[in-house]
Amino acid sequence: MDFESDNEPYQPFEKLCVLAPGLLGASVAMACRQNRTAKQIHIWSRRANSRAKLVGQSWCDQVCETPEEAAAGADMVVICSPVDFIVPLYNDIQSALSEGAIVTDVGSTKSLICRQANALENRTSHFVGSHPMAGSEKSGMDFADADLFVNRPCIVTPTENVADQPVHKTIQFWKSLGAVTFVETPEAHDEIVAHISHLPHLIAAALCNFVSDKHKNWEQLAGGGFKDTTRVAAGDPSLWKAIIESNREEINRALSDYQEELHRIQSALTNNNMVQIVSLLEQGKQFRDQLS
Amino acid sequence: MDFESDNEPYQPFEKLCVLAPGLLGASVAMACRQNRTAKQIHIWSRRANSRAKLVGQSWCDQVCETPEEAAAGADMVVICSPVDFIVPLYNDIQSALSEGAIVTDVGSTKSLICRQANALENRTSHFVGSHPMAGSEKSGMDFADADLFVNRPCIVTPTENVADQPVHKTIQFWKSLGAVTFVETPEAHDEIVAHISHLPHLIAAALCNFVSDKHKNWEQLAGGGFKDTTRVAAGDPSLWKAIIESNREEINRALSDYQEELHRIQSALTNNNMVQIVSLLEQGKQFRDQLS
Repeated sequence: MDFESDNEPYQPFEKLCVLAPGLLGASVAMACRQNRTAKQIHIWSRRANSRAKLVGQSWCDQVCETPEEAAAGADMVVICSPVDFIVPLYNDIQSALSEGAIVTDVGSTKSLICRQANALENRTSHFVGSHPMAGSEKSGMDFADADLFVNRPCIVTPTENVADQPVHKTIQFWKSLGAVTFVETPEAHDEIVAHISHLPHLIAAALCNFVSDKHKNWEQLAGGGFKDTTRVAAGDPSLWKAIIESNREEINRALSDYQEELHRIQSALTNNNMVQIVSLLEQGKQFRDQLS
Repeated sequence: MDFESDNEPYQPFEKLCVLAPGLLGASVAMACRQNRTAKQIHIWSRRANSRAKLVGQSWCDQVCETPEEAAAGADMVVICSPVDFIVPLYNDIQSALSEGAIVTDVGSTKSLICRQANALENRTSHFVGSHPMAGSEKSGMDFADADLFVNRPCIVTPTENVADQPVHKTIQFWKSLGAVTFVETPEAHDEIVAHISHLPHLIAAALCNFVSDKHKNWEQLAGGGFKDTTRVAAGDPSLWKAIIESNREEINRALSDYQEELHRIQSALTNNNMVQIVSLLEQGKQFRDQLS
């Protein structure tokens, strides 16, 4: 099945359920309302004060007290919790889900989640993992944006046992929010994000630690370059702990390979091999210039 | 002498000379005009088309054909060339300089430049190194901005043999452009920037190389975090080559220490020591949150 060239007219979902909205979940709901992706939007949030905030929002038709209540009768469910709560939440709503309901998520890692989700017994719903690569170091509903996914990549990660139709609908779902969709296996996804997201996070955190250990006052001299390079290190440590834990092996492999790259640079510096340094800088610039 | 607490009224310079204006040099001239830091501003640029662009700019009173012509009679000279041309340019203008003229620069490294500048014989001018930490991965006059230095750090790096008065005036000069000034030895400066500027540049370039070697198409999946972390790698390789070459030993030391930090992270990942990973993330966030 060619997921990418499909042009059939878009059918809105009857009832979208968003569980545990933070920045991403609230943005999903806002974007679905704006794009008429779903007729009804029901949301559950664990915290009472978040639920109170949801009441009366134009992008929330019903605020629910429990995940089960929010998921009941939904044909599309998006679980937006931290990665370590995605499968437990999926398990919680099992009995409430309609047969054939599609469940997806926005977790930053996919292998463990998809494996565990598929291992749940007596399922009549379809689990199709998703990773919309949007957001920032900020978290929380207050930063949500109906256009958060526009022109942003979203990787959809079906496992082999999932039927074409729910995969297809999940892709359509993200396309309707403006995302550019890609299909990868959960394992390929995790290798990719280890390199382009998790490793950069650790590199930035390590740089902050390194500089802060060296001298407590150097931060007042930090320029725009240092600030850019370390910006992601301001991310929520508990969210990142869960992400790193669930993709530990791929990240470890990527970090090991990255250190080899640094060793090569160190050798070039030691040997005053400026030709090699220039080649590194030029290749780096060429790659970076391609990114918007 | 307490450079920082000085409040004596500011005396504008009679004639400012800016040599080799790019982003920084043109911004210096624009800022000096805006803040009335100098009565006359004379500029020399190596390229004829740059000189043509300068003619008629409100922040340029005279465009000169040679560095000597621009420097003649100036009481303040700012050399804005790439680091490897700063001392050669200082040498070129020696004979044209008035006795007691102050010469400074905007180079990103200081030890080698200050050592070589001080070694020039028969000097009647004062050389006081400066490093305004402003600018971006963009280069060239077209990006110049009269407010580029406002609230940005500028490290002034006098050597022991320089009299207080020219140091004092150099500090006043940068303060008049809105910079927040710091005084360090050239060696301390180079250690600092190796950590907060040059190492981050190499880390970013290495990350670009690493990812581009892994898979040519991953860049289309890169999110905001990856783009931030690698932004500086878009900088001009020839400028950065000169910077790295002139601060090679400090950078090598910093890179070596940084790799120890990465080794610790790798051990924590290998041993599934998430307590250590969380501590790293929390310390990193704490440090990063202090930066604006």
